[in-house]
This record gives sequence, structure tokens and C-alpha cells, in this order.
Amino acid sequence: MTDLTDDAFLSGAVRLWQPAQGYRAATDPVFLAAACAARAEQEVLDLGCGVGAAALCLGRRVPGLRLTGLEVQPAYAELATRNAGRNDIALEVVVGDAARMPEPLRARSFDHVLTNPPFFEAAAGLRADDPGRDRAFRESMTLEHWIDAGLRRLRPGGEITLIHRAERLTEILGALAPRCGAIRILPLAARQGRAAKRVIVIAKKGSRAPLQLLAPFILHDGARHEEDAPDFTQAAVSVLSKGAALAAVHPVPA
Amino acid sequence: MTDLTDDAFLSGAVRLWQPAQGYRAATDPVFLAAACAARAEQEVLDLGCGVGAAALCLGRRVPGLRLTGLEVQPAYAELATRNAGRNDIALEVVVGDAARMPEPLRARSFDHVLTNPPFFEAAAGLRADDPGRDRAFRESMTLEHWIDAGLRRLRPGGEITLIHRAERLTEILGALAPRCGAIRILPLAARQGRAAKRVIVIAKKGSRAPLQLLAPFILHDGARHEEDAPDFTQAAVSVLSKGAALAAVHPVPA
Repeated sequence: MTDLTDDAFLSGAVRLWQPAQGYRAATDPVFLAAACAARAEQEVLDLGCGVGAAALCLGRRVPGLRLTGLEVQPAYAELATRNAGRNDIALEVVVGDAARMPEPLRARSFDHVLTNPPFFEAAAGLRADDPGRDRAFRESMTLEHWIDAGLRRLRPGGEITLIHRAERLTEILGALAPRCGAIRILPLAARQGRAAKRVIVIAKKGSRAPLQLLAPFILHDGARHEEDAPDFTQAAVSVLSKGAALAAVHPVPA
Repeated sequence: MTDLTDDAFLSGAVRLWQPAQGYRAATDPVFLAAACAARAEQEVLDLGCGVGAAALCLGRRVPGLRLTGLEVQPAYAELATRNAGRNDIALEVVVGDAARMPEPLRARSFDHVLTNPPFFEAAAGLRADDPGRDRAFRESMTLEHWIDAGLRRLRPGGEITLIHRAERLTEILGALAPRCGAIRILPLAARQGRAAKRVIVIAKKGSRAPLQLLAPFILHDGARHEEDAPDFTQAAVSVLSKGAALAAVHPVPA
């Protein structure tokens, strides 16, 4: 990992060194952080924290959190530590694999787990040119196991918050259901009327409350992309530029 | 079952005798029929057909179908046969239990299965005063088993179309995933911005195409119910009054 870029998140309220090549944080970790309902003093684990984008965006919105990130790739973990320092947000970074949870984390439980799991199935055989990117995208374990590893680190009543491809909803719900309730699904759709490409899913460990399928969060105004026109919805601007919380995912009457 | 009512569906294009007490078809079977993509000459099974509401609404929209209904309660099955006759739509009604598929149906496979499964969990111990209503609402088998019984009656490449409570999405997807792909989830929401109370889910047997979480179908205009104002959306009126198909659930680019 040689070349780095210096990227602004939340209108520059968070600045991150990222590898120029390889897995790069974009909007997913910002939405993930916005969906997490952590409060000051709580303990939060970012499972697969990369360069720290989600954890640090959350830390910027909610002061006083005790943030921990687990990252399997040492170079990303090192950048997460550097990024925490330059943003003046406390973040403990543990190098290790979610499939073999490091001993210090096994002894701990968290109020919140947030995670942006790897995207592709091991079976799909996708392989990027960059080994770091490949590692970030590839699943060395299944999505179900990844989510279960997160749930094991939650205290009873604690919440997991994840963002993933909408097409993986079956596996996501299947992994959450045995241990969780109060599952809330927030579809993220590019435009009104479109299928959702992403879902944010939140679940509470040990709850028996019913699942809620929420109204979609719409990213862009209008029916299609207009050249040169920044067309994020006001709600998307609030999250991406102003660091607002995604209130929609907290329990609402059906 | 003594008192019957004579109810108009699709602005009277379908008329149904229904028991005045007990389980009564309302809008769910109309949406279910609207979501089914059956074409003329195809064989369609309505699993748990009740008085025939979904099958007959589908038969009205798509002439030339070979429609079969399975219904466990003889009195409802008899009404389904009567209702088919008075609407001049061919419907073969088989009396039997989805949990113990009758022999004549076991030997057959269908192009489409549509189903509005019973709502409540056996464990919930809900019991209505009317035994017919109780039977229609209670699950004598699990939702997963019900869906699986439907999938077994599908030919490869055939489609199941179901409508159910959104909160049961985990079990629905879990039951579909082992045998199906091209799963499409259409949330039905009372109003824009509300959580979905119902989902229509369609899946293709043997497909490996990815799941799609579609934009919600909105039933009512405005933010709340206005007294005396019929406030169905135009799209809902098309389905409920004009018998239109629900085009949204057919595959669309994500």
C-alpha cells in the first residue's frame, strides 16, 4: 500500500487517509454510522472497520463513545489508527479476523456493533487486481457467519446495525433471526420508484418484537441523473454532508 | 355457516358469496391476483383458496387459465365452487389440507401457485369465536411448511406469488430460498413514508437470479385518513376497482 488519498467525509468534519487503490470508503459507511443509535458512554464495535470511516463518522456525531474497530488487514488497521488521531476521536483498533475473534475481544461485549460486511460470495470467484481490495470484498467466511460473529459480541439488548446489498436480504435475516428481534429494514433506493440496491438492517439481541419493513430512504431527486446537477435529496444531504442521524430506522409504529 | 353476504370485487366484475361471520376476503386476495403473472392456458393453483376470491379475480383478468383451488374447509370450498359458477369462470376446487396434499394434486405440477397463507402462529394461541374464522387464521402447520407445500406443486421455472404480513419476511424468505431465485419483494404501505404492513413476494422455482427489494406500492394518498374522503391512490384504484395487473412485481432493472 503506497499511494494514499486524503478524503473529506461529512463536509470535511472527518478526514481520512485511504489507499488510492483497493477498497475505498464512499457513502456506505457514512449511512451505516448515521443509522447507529449509540449514545455517549456506550461501547461500540465496528466489525471490519477498514480505515475507520464508519466508526469515525459515528464518533463525530456522538461524542463520548468508546469505539473499537476490528480489521484483518494490518495496513488498513494502521490507517484507521492514524485517521482516529488526526480527527481527534478515540478509536481502539484491533488487528484480527472476525472468523477467529481475537482473545481480547472475545472477553468483551458491546452496546452496539456496526458492520459493512464484505460483499461477494467466496464461491463467486471474484478477484480484484489489488490484494487489499480483494481481501476487503471477498468473503473468507459466509455472510451469516460474519453477522453471527458480530451478534456474539453484543450484550443482551444491544443492537447490530449493518449495511449491505439488498439482494442478500435472505441471508441477513436468516443470520439475525435466531438471536434477535425488533429487526428494522431500511431500503436505500437511488430514486423514488426504484428497487433498493442497499439495505440498512438493525436488530436487537434477545428481543421478540416484530420485524418492520420501513419506507425507503431515497438518495436522489428526480427520475434520472441530470448531467452536472448535484441531485441528492435533502435527507441524503443531511446525512452525507451534515452528519445527521438516520432517524427513520428507529422504531416507529407500523 | 348460515348467513352469507353477496360482495362485489373489482367494481362488481367478480361477485362472491361469503360467510357473514368468519374469515372474509377483502383487499389481500385482490392484490394477490393482481401480482400473479399467469398467462392464458397456464395451470394455476390457489393454495388455501377460501371462497375463491384470488383465483376468480385472476381468472377475470386472464381468460383461459386452468384454475385449481385447494381449501381445507368444505363449506368454503363449496362456496368457491358456487362463486366460480356464478362468475362463469372455470375453477376446480379440491377439498383438502396443504399439510397432507391430496393425492390428485400430488401428481400435478403448476405454472403458478398463489397463496394468502393463514396469518397467525400456532404458538400464539389466538382463537376466534367462529371456528371457520379460527381455522382460516390459525396455522395448523408453520408458514415455512405452507410455502414449501406450494413450491412442491410448482414446475421448474414456475412462480409462486404470495401476500402476507411484512413482519413475517424472515420466514417467507427462508422458506423460498432453498428452492427459488428471482425473489421480488413488493412492500404494500398504507401511505408514503410508512412501514409496510403487507408484502407481496414472488419467486421462481429453480432460478438463481438475485433478490429484488422493490419500491413500495402505496395504497392511500395524503399523510393521514380524512373522514369521508375515499383516498386510494390511482394505482390502488386500478388494481382494486379496475382489475389491473400489478406490473411493479415483474422483473425490473435494479
